[in-house]
Parts: sequence; structure tokens; C-alpha cells
Amino acid sequence: MSNQKDEKYFQNISHRERAIFEGAITMGAMFHQFVGTPVNKKSVKSLERAIKDAMELQPCIDKVEVKIDLEMISDFQSEYEYVSLTGEMLDVTVVSSYHDRKVISRMHYVEELQYPLMYVKKVF
Amino acid sequence: MSNQKDEKYFQNISHRERAIFEGAITMGAMFHQFVGTPVNKKSVKSLERAIKDAMELQPCIDKVEVKIDLEMISDFQSEYEYVSLTGEMLDVTVVSSYHDRKVISRMHYVEELQYPLMYVKKVF
Amino acid sequence: MSNQKDEKYFQNISHRERAIFEGAITMGAMFHQFVGTPVNKKSVKSLERAIKDAMELQPCIDKVEVKIDLEMISDFQSEYEYVSLTGEMLDVTVVSSYHDRKVISRMHYVEELQYPLMYVKKVF
Amino acid sequence: MSNQKDEKYFQNISHRERAIFEGAITMGAMFHQFVGTPVNKKSVKSLERAIKDAMELQPCIDKVEVKIDLEMISDFQSEYEYVSLTGEMLDVTVVSSYHDRKVISRMHYVEELQYPLMYVKKVF
Repeated sequence: MSNQKDEKYFQNISHRERAIFEGAITMGAMFHQFVGTPVNKKSVKSLERAIKDAMELQPCIDKVEVKIDLEMISDFQSEYEYVSLTGEMLDVTVVSSYHDRKVISRMHYVEELQYPLMYVKKVF
Repeated sequence: MSNQKDEKYFQNISHRERAIFEGAITMGAMFHQFVGTPVNKKSVKSLERAIKDAMELQPCIDKVEVKIDLEMISDFQSEYEYVSLTGEMLDVTVVSSYHDRKVISRMHYVEELQYPLMYVKKVF
Repeated sequence: MSNQKDEKYFQNISHRERAIFEGAITMGAMFHQFVGTPVNKKSVKSLERAIKDAMELQPCIDKVEVKIDLEMISDFQSEYEYVSLTGEMLDVTVVSSYHDRKVISRMHYVEELQYPLMYVKKVF
Repeated sequence: MSNQKDEKYFQNISHRERAIFEGAITMGAMFHQFVGTPVNKKSVKSLERAIKDAMELQPCIDKVEVKIDLEMISDFQSEYEYVSLTGEMLDVTVVSSYHDRKVISRMHYVEELQYPLMYVKKVF
């Protein structure tokens, strides 16, 4: 979903840069909307689905793939049978596009950085 | 999911009050976790499902029913084809229980208060 | 801030129970609104203040005290100089009241449960 | 705060594009972290401050300016004396940079789009 009427606000950047910009917004949005959500094996599929469906609504987003890895936090299991979603558990790919340009962004936990890194995987 | 080991932390309140307490936590959690999520007709079912599944994991919660009313905000539709979830759009029922007591809490927009009110509908 | 007009929605519960109910909503709201926020030593005071000020606006809330313990996660420091706020780092006390009854609720990480427990500390 | 060790993940994009990417992440993060927070005239300054301080921690962010306009929603005042923060109330400027390139992004409500638009205002 892009939009003709908003084009004048994006005169400063190229089509390629717009696709990068919109992919990145969706990455930040996804993380900060859903981190903290209670999740376990029973609910993980519906949470992945809702994140995907919600984030695919954002401007210029073609496709979102979400994988939540509950094993990441198996050692931290509490007495209760669920955990709070963290960035470390998320592996998310966002495909954004604007006119002729397409960008694949990804977020996943990077061991050497000890950080769930968001980066641009590929630009077409 | 209640838990034997936490009982000593709840000596100050009755079973009935514990059920009220846990239902209310889930109400506040639900609202502040999911408000702001992009939603439209295409995604509304998966969002309702994810809210239900996530909130049913919380301690002492038996059942959660979630209804998102997109008509509430039809007048506020932007140029883009979705809206951000607000409290006004939510109608949520939470059934919580502790030992022999069961509580039904509900949140929905109350016209006369112009506010999405959370209240206790029934105690068994 | 309580409200005369909403009294009819709370006929099913006592004044004491209403104070418990409202304190618990604020606990759940606080956790799920702010978990995930970037925080470090430089920003911790302004985040504690904003959580306190925001949560004191909720119905029937007299006072909120917030302490964020960054040491909880010192081992998990990434290459970047901040962390995402988690429930484990939070120690929050909420004083709620309704008419003649007052309730002190608290949330903090409980070692034996490996869980940030929300409970009722005292009722007056 | 940028970081030497993450450079290899950003080989696909230019310095200018990295600055755009990081500014956009912070925009999405800011919106979805804080929308839904209770706010009124008494608390607005501490909320603006906390958003600014938290978002300035994100990678490659030099400066964040946050203005919350409570007048936007004066007609929607409920019986209670606060509102939930919405995107419509926010006017946020993010300055991001990477090496020699600097980007100013902004989000504010755009009347003609009926939407709180995030866009790139200027690139240096």
C-alpha cells in the first residue's frame, strides 16, 4: 500500500531510499509493538501470524515473515508456563518496495553483537 | 495457570479478590500491549486471535474473548487502508479464577463516560 | 481520579475490591506499555519519572513509585550502550484507593519464582 | 552510538542510506512503544522527555525532539482527566547520522492525508 498523495513529502530521497525507509519503520514498529507479549508453544503460531498480518498493512510493505524462537529463552523459564516476547527471540524479514525498487530487511539476534540487529539484507 | 509457590504472596487477600486482581492485570496488559497495532478488515481476525491466545497465558486466566469493532473508527479512515488499534474499538471479556472463585471482567467503550471502561461484570 | 458516573458499573464489588481492581489494572498497564523501551544509566531517571507520571493518571491511583534496576541485566550488555526494559528490571509500587479503602500493590522480580510477580502488599 | 563491529552487515547500502534506515527504525519504535500511554497537561513534559531520552539511545541517533499536542484531542476528553497518547498528537523530529551523512526525519499529523506521516525532511 503506497499512496499517490504522499509523494511530495518524499522528494528528498530516491525510490530505493523510500523502500529502505519504509522497511525500517516497520522493523522498529514490529519490535516495539509486540515485545513484552506473553507467549509459549501454544500461542506462538497465532502471535507470529498477527505480527505478520499487522505489519503487512504498513505503507510500502509487500511481505513480512516472522519466526519466534522459544528455545532462545528455555533456560529462563519461570514457574509460570510462558515468557515475555523479547527481541532476542525474533527473526523477522520485511520486504518493502516503492515503484521499481525492492528491499529485504531482516532482524535477528546476532551472537557476536549480543544484540537483535536490524539490517538491510538485499536491495533490488 | 495458577501456581502453588506464589500463594504466600497473596495472604492479604481472599480467593475472590485474587481472581479480581488477576483479571484486572490482564485487562491492563491487553490494552497497553496491543493499542497502536495496525489493523483493518483483512487482519482483524488474526489480531483478535493473538490477543486472546496471549492473554489466556497470564496467571489465573481461564478464558479471554476479544472483539475489535472497526466500524467505531470508520469516519477516521486515512488515505492508507488501515487504522491504529485504540481502546475505543475493543470489547474484551476476561474470565479469571482462583480456587473456588470465578470473576468475569469486561472492557468496552461506554458512551456516557466517553471512555473504554474496565469493570467487573460478575463474580461467582 | 475516581468518578461518580462510573459507580453503577461497580455494584458487584466492594470498595476494597475496587481499589484492588484498579491497582491491578495499573500494574498490567505499566508493564505492557513500557517493557521494550531502550534504557541506560543516562535515561533511567526520565523513564522512571514518565512511568510514574503516566500511571498516576489512571482511575483511583494515588501514587506510583518506580525503580528500574539496570544491574539486573549488566551481564547481558550488548555492543550497544543500552538495553531494552524488561519486567525483571522493574520494582514498582502502586497505591490505589476507592472511598475509604486503600491498597498497596507491588511488582518486583521474585528469585524463587524466576518471575516479576505482581501482588497485593497491604490493604487498609 | 554507532558501532564498528556491525559495519559488515551494512555493505549493501551507502552511508546516507544507513542514516535514513536508522532514523526510520527510531520513528517506528517511538510510535509503537509509546502510543497508548496515559497523558494529560500534568504529565506531558515528563513523557516528552522520556521519549526523547529513550530514542536518543538507539544506534546512529544524534538527537530527538518530541512535541505532544494535547489540543489535538480536546474534543475527545472523557469523564476521566487524561487521554491515551495517539500518533495524531505527536510531532517528532529525529536526527540520525552515519559517518559523514546526516538525516532529519519527521513525523506529524498531515491534514490532507489524515495520517501521522513519517518522512525524510532533509539529508546532509
